[in-house]
Amino acid sequence: MVRNSESHNKDVKKGLYLVSTPIGNLDDITLRAIKTLEVSDYILCEDTRTSSVLLKKYKINSKLISYHKFNERKNLLKIIELLKNGLVISLISDAGTPSISDPGIILINECIKNNIDIFPIPGPSSVISAVSISGF
Amino acid sequence: MVRNSESHNKDVKKGLYLVSTPIGNLDDITLRAIKTLEVSDYILCEDTRTSSVLLKKYKINSKLISYHKFNERKNLLKIIELLKNGLVISLISDAGTPSISDPGIILINECIKNNIDIFPIPGPSSVISAVSISGF
Repeated sequence: MVRNSESHNKDVKKGLYLVSTPIGNLDDITLRAIKTLEVSDYILCEDTRTSSVLLKKYKINSKLISYHKFNERKNLLKIIELLKNGLVISLISDAGTPSISDPGIILINECIKNNIDIFPIPGPSSVISAVSISGF
Repeated sequence: MVRNSESHNKDVKKGLYLVSTPIGNLDDITLRAIKTLEVSDYILCEDTRTSSVLLKKYKINSKLISYHKFNERKNLLKIIELLKNGLVISLISDAGTPSISDPGIILINECIKNNIDIFPIPGPSSVISAVSISGF
C-alpha cells in the first residue's frame, strides 16, 4: 500500500510537516496548511474517516496513512524510510496542532535522531483559543 | 474618526472577535480569519503599519483603530460603547493569537463584565508551534 517511490514534489522542502487542522469549524485552516497537504506524498492521520471530511472539502487527494497511538511504533520505521528517501509527509491529528496532545512525539524524536527536517505549519490550538478569551 | 453608526453586517454575530494572524509567513492565516476581518466594522491592531501589510495582501478594507498597550485604557470606553451598539469589532496583534502575550486582556475583561460576546478565531501561536516540533 505504501510505495517507496521518489517524491513528485520537486519544489518543496523534503521532510515531515506538522500541519494544524480545524478544531470545530472547517474554515479554521490556514492557506499554507491547505497548500502543504496538497503537495504531500502522504498524509499521516489519526482517523482517516475524520480527516477525509476535511480533505474532501478542500479537494486534497494526497494518499492517507493511518497513524494513531495503537500503530505509531509499528509504522515508525517505514515512515522514517520514506522520509529518508526524500518524500514529503504531513502529520495531522483529528483536530488542532499535532503532537500537542495527540500522536506524533515518537515520530518527531525519531526524525530528530535521523536529522530529518521537521516543519511546523501553525494553526488552531484548542488550549490557546480557550486561554485567549478567558480574561486570565 | 471613530463613528458610532450601526453595523453594516447584519448576518454576523455582534461582538468582539479575537483573530489570530500569521507569525512569519503571510499564508499562515485561516479562511475564517480572512472572512472575519473582511466583515468587521473596525479592526483594533497593535501597529497599523504592520497590520496594513497583511490586510492589503488579502484586500481587506475594514477601518483600523490603533490599539496598543499605551492607549489600551484610553480607548476602552469608546470601544465598549461601539460593541454595545452592535458593531462587529476584531482585535488582532502584530502576530499570533491576540491577548496571549499582547494587549487585549483589559478589553476582554471589560467585555465579560458587560456581557458582550467574545469569539476566538483560532490560528497560529508561536508557543504551540515551538512546542509541537520540540519532541518534548
